[in-house]
Amino acid sequence: MVDFSGNSDGSGLGEFKLIARLAEFGSAPELQQAESVLTGIGDDAAVVSTPSGQMLLTTDAIVDGVHFRSANERWYDIGWKCAVSNLSDIAAMGGVPDHALVTLGVPRGASEDTYVEFYSGMNEAFEKFGGRLVGGDVVSSPTMFVNLALTGHPVTDGIWLQRSTAKLGDLVCVTGTLGSSAGGLEVLLSGESNPSGQILIDRHYRPTPRIELGNRLVESGVRCAMDVSDGLVGDLEKIASMSSVGIKIEMACIPIAPELKFMVGTSAIELALSGGEDYELVFTTPESVVDNLPHDVKSQISVIGRVTHDTVVGGDLRVVDSTGKTYEPIRKGWDHLNG
Amino acid sequence: MVDFSGNSDGSGLGEFKLIARLAEFGSAPELQQAESVLTGIGDDAAVVSTPSGQMLLTTDAIVDGVHFRSANERWYDIGWKCAVSNLSDIAAMGGVPDHALVTLGVPRGASEDTYVEFYSGMNEAFEKFGGRLVGGDVVSSPTMFVNLALTGHPVTDGIWLQRSTAKLGDLVCVTGTLGSSAGGLEVLLSGESNPSGQILIDRHYRPTPRIELGNRLVESGVRCAMDVSDGLVGDLEKIASMSSVGIKIEMACIPIAPELKFMVGTSAIELALSGGEDYELVFTTPESVVDNLPHDVKSQISVIGRVTHDTVVGGDLRVVDSTGKTYEPIRKGWDHLNG
Repeated sequence: MVDFSGNSDGSGLGEFKLIARLAEFGSAPELQQAESVLTGIGDDAAVVSTPSGQMLLTTDAIVDGVHFRSANERWYDIGWKCAVSNLSDIAAMGGVPDHALVTLGVPRGASEDTYVEFYSGMNEAFEKFGGRLVGGDVVSSPTMFVNLALTGHPVTDGIWLQRSTAKLGDLVCVTGTLGSSAGGLEVLLSGESNPSGQILIDRHYRPTPRIELGNRLVESGVRCAMDVSDGLVGDLEKIASMSSVGIKIEMACIPIAPELKFMVGTSAIELALSGGEDYELVFTTPESVVDNLPHDVKSQISVIGRVTHDTVVGGDLRVVDSTGKTYEPIRKGWDHLNG
Repeated sequence: MVDFSGNSDGSGLGEFKLIARLAEFGSAPELQQAESVLTGIGDDAAVVSTPSGQMLLTTDAIVDGVHFRSANERWYDIGWKCAVSNLSDIAAMGGVPDHALVTLGVPRGASEDTYVEFYSGMNEAFEKFGGRLVGGDVVSSPTMFVNLALTGHPVTDGIWLQRSTAKLGDLVCVTGTLGSSAGGLEVLLSGESNPSGQILIDRHYRPTPRIELGNRLVESGVRCAMDVSDGLVGDLEKIASMSSVGIKIEMACIPIAPELKFMVGTSAIELALSGGEDYELVFTTPESVVDNLPHDVKSQISVIGRVTHDTVVGGDLRVVDSTGKTYEPIRKGWDHLNG
């Protein structure tokens, strides 16, 4: 899912700009008023109320040459990652994945084996993290693409993780480590490999959606979160914007895998701040909630900052170094249409 | 949605063949066993059971150069038709549309106006027939494509229209008239227009999903139906195959619009038998159910044949002319990957 919380680079038809325009055009205001739509465009997944109860809906597509390269032929991994990007949207809402529909855009001359492998990777991710493929569409297309749509249900009835609920004084936390997926891509592109590099490559090809952790966070009282799919800085800016708060994070607290430091040295922090596709969760919550998190949850998170201001129109995110000086990341995140 | 009920042309990677392979590969048997999946791949939409009740899920994609031509710039109509192809899947199950997710594959340099117009057409179809856009994804793509996923709920709890429930002795009926959409495309390609031609062009660009009629059929006791999206003969073959029955339909009974006869003369019957995208419903039901249909429903349907045999492995469809002789349609339907 994408959102319309700004972040356009101002040139061309950026992803965010287009969504903003479409939202403005008529849909978003209606959405907010629609009785059956509780959270529409702008969060990781839409929360809708049906005659039979609340549910989550999300969709994500991947396109050859943009999100993956068919020439690499890692079909199993591409299928896995396609499932994970959707599962992660459900995780980011604190939901439980249910049913998936897949659309395959198939170029002429494509081999069946390709799709069987792709399917196999996708299904393994569903088996491991929940969700089940129940149908789909197959269409001819000059460019190979895959679209997944996934439903989910709440782990606790009517309670979700949202982007718009960060409050003054909240701690800002992330799960796992950041930058490893982007590091894995760099290792791949460099062509040099070793055991540390291989760990990063695995993180790039086989990310883990934090379904269970998202559920545990909801159950522990956390209410504000999203997944880190486009890079920490860009994603936290969305929380800041949608919650109208100022957030300060400390570079020294960003969790980075030792393998990433080993492989890329001082650029590790840049990858951790701006690299996409880690599929970890970033969340804000009162200190008391963090204090009371179960031990096994606490061991998987890092406190990286705090919500420092409220009523900040458009939101504000500041990254500070160990001396308290504001740090400007070199690149703020990925806009798939221009990046 | 597509199905895997056969119909491959045996050359290359046909749509049906690919789905059959994927289904065979492991998904379909699991689907049938899965407690939460009541009707999986193989019907117009999947019926799933969630913690909060039964629901429908369907998805359909359209690709530039395959399902529409961006060069025509009829964006409003393309948006309308994209919504209708999904709404029609819900209609074919006898359901009520609820929530939609849209994925836009956007080429570099695309104009926002294009998407605003597209959106506008799509939203008008949703406003008219039900369903509401609640979110989506926007991705960069060398080829423009649009994917819609749509949910629905039953009009009568736990009761659906399915492809596998045709019974010996059932009458075979269709709603509306057939072939007009394909006729409209022929008129467009010929470049010649007149008032009759315009009516067909409208049928091509602005088809109507039979949501209300599908609901009325369920309420009247009909249990077997699908939508005519790939052509009557090809689609009825799917019902025959999934119900393991033999079906006979009579050419003389196929409903054809006077405008189609006027514009294409004797080829009208070929278009009615094999033309796609009419989005009418074809259904089978006992004669007693047809007799008792409310007058306003009866006025919208035509009886075109009968289920003549049961326990026919793989199913069988026979088209007969007014002398009772078997007629072989020139073209049996559309396989989007080879057609």
